[in-house]
Amino acid sequence: MSTRAPASGEDRLIARHFRPLARHPGAFGLEDDAASITPPTGCDLVVTTDALVSGVHFFPDDPPDAVGSKSLRVNLSDLAAKGAQPLGFLLALALPDDFSENWLASFAEGLGADADAFNCPLLGGDTVRTTGPTTINISAFGAVKNGQMVRRAGAQPGDLVVVTGTIGDAAIGLLLRKDPGLRTRLGLSAGQLDELVGRYLRPQPRSAIAELLPRFVSAAMDVSDGLVGDLEKLCRVSNVAAEIQAEHLPLSDAARAALAAEPAVLETIITGGDDYEILATAASTNVGPLCKEASARGVAISVIGRVASGDGGVQVINPTGKPIGLRRRSFSHF
Amino acid sequence: MSTRAPASGEDRLIARHFRPLARHPGAFGLEDDAASITPPTGCDLVVTTDALVSGVHFFPDDPPDAVGSKSLRVNLSDLAAKGAQPLGFLLALALPDDFSENWLASFAEGLGADADAFNCPLLGGDTVRTTGPTTINISAFGAVKNGQMVRRAGAQPGDLVVVTGTIGDAAIGLLLRKDPGLRTRLGLSAGQLDELVGRYLRPQPRSAIAELLPRFVSAAMDVSDGLVGDLEKLCRVSNVAAEIQAEHLPLSDAARAALAAEPAVLETIITGGDDYEILATAASTNVGPLCKEASARGVAISVIGRVASGDGGVQVINPTGKPIGLRRRSFSHF
Repeated sequence: MSTRAPASGEDRLIARHFRPLARHPGAFGLEDDAASITPPTGCDLVVTTDALVSGVHFFPDDPPDAVGSKSLRVNLSDLAAKGAQPLGFLLALALPDDFSENWLASFAEGLGADADAFNCPLLGGDTVRTTGPTTINISAFGAVKNGQMVRRAGAQPGDLVVVTGTIGDAAIGLLLRKDPGLRTRLGLSAGQLDELVGRYLRPQPRSAIAELLPRFVSAAMDVSDGLVGDLEKLCRVSNVAAEIQAEHLPLSDAARAALAAEPAVLETIITGGDDYEILATAASTNVGPLCKEASARGVAISVIGRVASGDGGVQVINPTGKPIGLRRRSFSHF
Repeated sequence: MSTRAPASGEDRLIARHFRPLARHPGAFGLEDDAASITPPTGCDLVVTTDALVSGVHFFPDDPPDAVGSKSLRVNLSDLAAKGAQPLGFLLALALPDDFSENWLASFAEGLGADADAFNCPLLGGDTVRTTGPTTINISAFGAVKNGQMVRRAGAQPGDLVVVTGTIGDAAIGLLLRKDPGLRTRLGLSAGQLDELVGRYLRPQPRSAIAELLPRFVSAAMDVSDGLVGDLEKLCRVSNVAAEIQAEHLPLSDAARAALAAEPAVLETIITGGDDYEILATAASTNVGPLCKEASARGVAISVIGRVASGDGGVQVINPTGKPIGLRRRSFSHF
């Protein structure tokens, strides 16, 4: 008489969708209580966590592979901004009663593609039921040489403020998702719509330049809650202030077109969030080499302002030299 | 003109309730994107994650300090079963619109007390809104000497099966929470009720004996989904089978009283879960020293069965030598 029980539904679900992602030997095929990783010798471990809730951080009808991709990328963006190389991640997934296997398969596919692309394997996880919306929580681990994690604290008066890529695309993309009539009012093409919404759906973590940051910058963070508010957070813990020149903000052609059609879009661009670009401060002598080496790695860096003495304040200056008034500074859940 | 913005509601909430828990220097006072920890030289990192959803893993009216405590302890239990010493944890918290500051303050108090007691500091986290129930996700990190993480795989035919503490208390406690009339039907005293419900509310991670496991056991896991089902998981990945003697199960006086009043309680005891005891297999020559050293650390260990050749099956044998039939083997969310 065999008393071997069939694998539980939970075990089957994990085996089908997530075991293929668990290629790291320390993940033990997701068949253990925990995973084991050996950080490289001489390195500190950098750890970060981000939760995404359906209906709050993504739309229930967003493509599930993009949701899987974004869940990991927002964490990879944090690791990159700290100068850390990815080691792996844990996934905790709370699924509602009416979750579909198709949704899960596509979610796992998007997640797995990025786990491969960014060399950040799934190490373990937990899959549970919820009476609420799908909730995804990823904790990601990276390695950085001992004592080299790039902090938010460290900006010095006189440093320049720099940012990667372009700012505001994802926030405009979110507005376009919410308001289908907006594209026409902003005079955007279908291609520009796709581009902006694409930036919202699938951020681009700047992992390619993570290794440069400890060498060249005095402070850094990723822009998730809005450029102005996030720079304020950096300035506050660095005990400095900063000024940004609006005309120096790096904008995509699509964002530039939207701004030309509706000047109020500027506030969305600089406070809207979801950019997942790296915001950093660097001594002016370091900015040239940083931009050059980043460019060689395919990442554009723009100088947008300057650090000054102060107590955390950030001003955005328009081309006539006047500070721009803002109704809000950044996104907050509470 | 000062343009320094006030801290956001999210920042204030974190500062008030969670910053006091972030005593590790690498947590940077929760004012950075990520935390930094340096694993001890010669050690691997052990990582684990567990999600708790209100209404699924705990009752909305459970004492919030116990919920905070349990959230961490279920992870500490995993680390202990793997032979790892705690290093710290990340907390991702999704709160509904109607969350109360009092609930949060008490939750943080329970969590912080255990972070201190188990030397496992808060390193960082994420706090978000949800339209669903309160959802708590903790990822915990521990250290174990290189290559020494205790696996589920490793049990050998001839090994003895051992378990810490007592089994079934939490599962009976859960039944008692759900059915107020059950206490009278089982003939339990008010003190026994409190004891059993207390085991459900606040598990006791066996961190005190974590360091013994790599020396003495061939495989281990913590019992969270039920003794029989969890032992089957261990046997399956070890490619062995096992037999448990029902009469050797370690039971508290309260569980023994409930079982005497209602023999069907046996199934709850061995399949109910939430025990958070360590289940392990060990060569018979190691069991004596293991029990002795564990006892010196205040943890009782009982021999409950034996490992045999097989394909993952587990039988529970009654005192007359017959296998006991079970309707289910363990808890599964899916």
